[in-house]
Amino acid sequence: MNFDTKSLHSVCRINGGAACTNDDILAEETPVALVYNGIAHVVLMATPADLAELALGFSLSEGILQHAGQAYDIEVKQACNGIEVHLEIASAQFQALKARRRSMSGRTGCGLCGIDSLAAIPTELPQVVRNGNIRATDIQTALNHLQSHQHLRSQTGAVHGAAWVVGGEIQYLFEDVGRHNALDKLLGFGARQALDWQQGFALISSRASYEMIAKAAMLGIGCVVAVSAPTALAVRLAEQSGITLAGFAKPHQFSIYSHTGFICYRETA
Amino acid sequence: MNFDTKSLHSVCRINGGAACTNDDILAEETPVALVYNGIAHVVLMATPADLAELALGFSLSEGILQHAGQAYDIEVKQACNGIEVHLEIASAQFQALKARRRSMSGRTGCGLCGIDSLAAIPTELPQVVRNGNIRATDIQTALNHLQSHQHLRSQTGAVHGAAWVVGGEIQYLFEDVGRHNALDKLLGFGARQALDWQQGFALISSRASYEMIAKAAMLGIGCVVAVSAPTALAVRLAEQSGITLAGFAKPHQFSIYSHTGFICYRETA
Repeated sequence: MNFDTKSLHSVCRINGGAACTNDDILAEETPVALVYNGIAHVVLMATPADLAELALGFSLSEGILQHAGQAYDIEVKQACNGIEVHLEIASAQFQALKARRRSMSGRTGCGLCGIDSLAAIPTELPQVVRNGNIRATDIQTALNHLQSHQHLRSQTGAVHGAAWVVGGEIQYLFEDVGRHNALDKLLGFGARQALDWQQGFALISSRASYEMIAKAAMLGIGCVVAVSAPTALAVRLAEQSGITLAGFAKPHQFSIYSHTGFICYRETA
Repeated sequence: MNFDTKSLHSVCRINGGAACTNDDILAEETPVALVYNGIAHVVLMATPADLAELALGFSLSEGILQHAGQAYDIEVKQACNGIEVHLEIASAQFQALKARRRSMSGRTGCGLCGIDSLAAIPTELPQVVRNGNIRATDIQTALNHLQSHQHLRSQTGAVHGAAWVVGGEIQYLFEDVGRHNALDKLLGFGARQALDWQQGFALISSRASYEMIAKAAMLGIGCVVAVSAPTALAVRLAEQSGITLAGFAKPHQFSIYSHTGFICYRETA
């Protein structure tokens, strides 16, 4: 199914002392419910595109599924107040999800999906396995081309992008009003395509917070490059899980916060 | 209690072909659990400052409390994996919260705090009551001074700000790694001070998404000015609830997306 990802809206622009009325393109933001084997589990506010990828990526990065083959079917349906994505998942994973739901009594919130007390925070994340280095010149090449791949952002200014880069080339880029969602779309797409997460890096147009690194670690991505700032917790998590994290990334300049040795920066000379 | 909101971290900066090592200031991001009458309810990833304000603002903007007087005591405590904020709330509100937790079976996620199916999305939000207009010149004056009030952002680049502005003057500004949290801190502070939400506007350094407008509507704020883009859903919600929403706000230029008539822009000539 296809849904509108943007809409026109009349807007009054104030420019110094003058005012004029124009049409502006706004990014749609839609409630998307993920429904596992008939049971509604979570609602995400998302850009209504690539929703099967979002559902699969979320399921993998949140540990509901361990690999893409455990999702037998994914179907996107229009619903009353939004969109439902119905996943048919393997019964062992569904039983584990039901058990987890029973043990997590009630309402939780943003930040750490599904956690309502500090005791439930996962203390260990997978160690990524590294296979080869990333050239600084490849990061710079990708950053030079990032904007030209962010089509919805160029129209609306309201969405984040998450890209997969191999050898400096942006191979895939997904957009969403939520940065976690953009990354989950990329992760879901990559899992379906059986992308080798060790042969490249994830480039995100946003900040790098705890959850972005946790999601990358869950899929085994070895290098994350963020256009904006990392948080202290994201850096600690990247150090622990073996991820090379770069931030404040512009075409000619970026900073490496963890596992610096995996980026070949002498080659930039 | 005081917690560090930032930390130093050694970083390798790549600038063209050259690399050097510096210390960088990173924003802390800490799990903060809100505990109501002894029951853990939600974990937020937050900047560990102004946590009593965050807890009160979240409680009000999420409809757990109807007014600040229903929170008898708020205590911030260091815990094993993060920080706990213990709220002692009125028993009627606590009973309602327990009932809501029972009816919302299990794990939910980001986006719409505590909602796991589309049927649970609130379809009506309060109408804000307007009392007077906002001058475009006041918006422009505040935007001229916004950056100088964002102290943690100027050091780390990783946090959002939410300010309360009256007559062009930024009276209060709160910062957080999460934009919802920054706004909740402002709302909690304002509720404690019994600020008149009709005499001014909220200025946020981020985008305006659905939840930012929903939170503003819950407290009765009549005007929200966002530095970055609004989403289409945020604009619809602002239209419905009577909020004047401006976006892409720079000192000399901004766009008004809803209830334009409440901003006096002819005075800017």
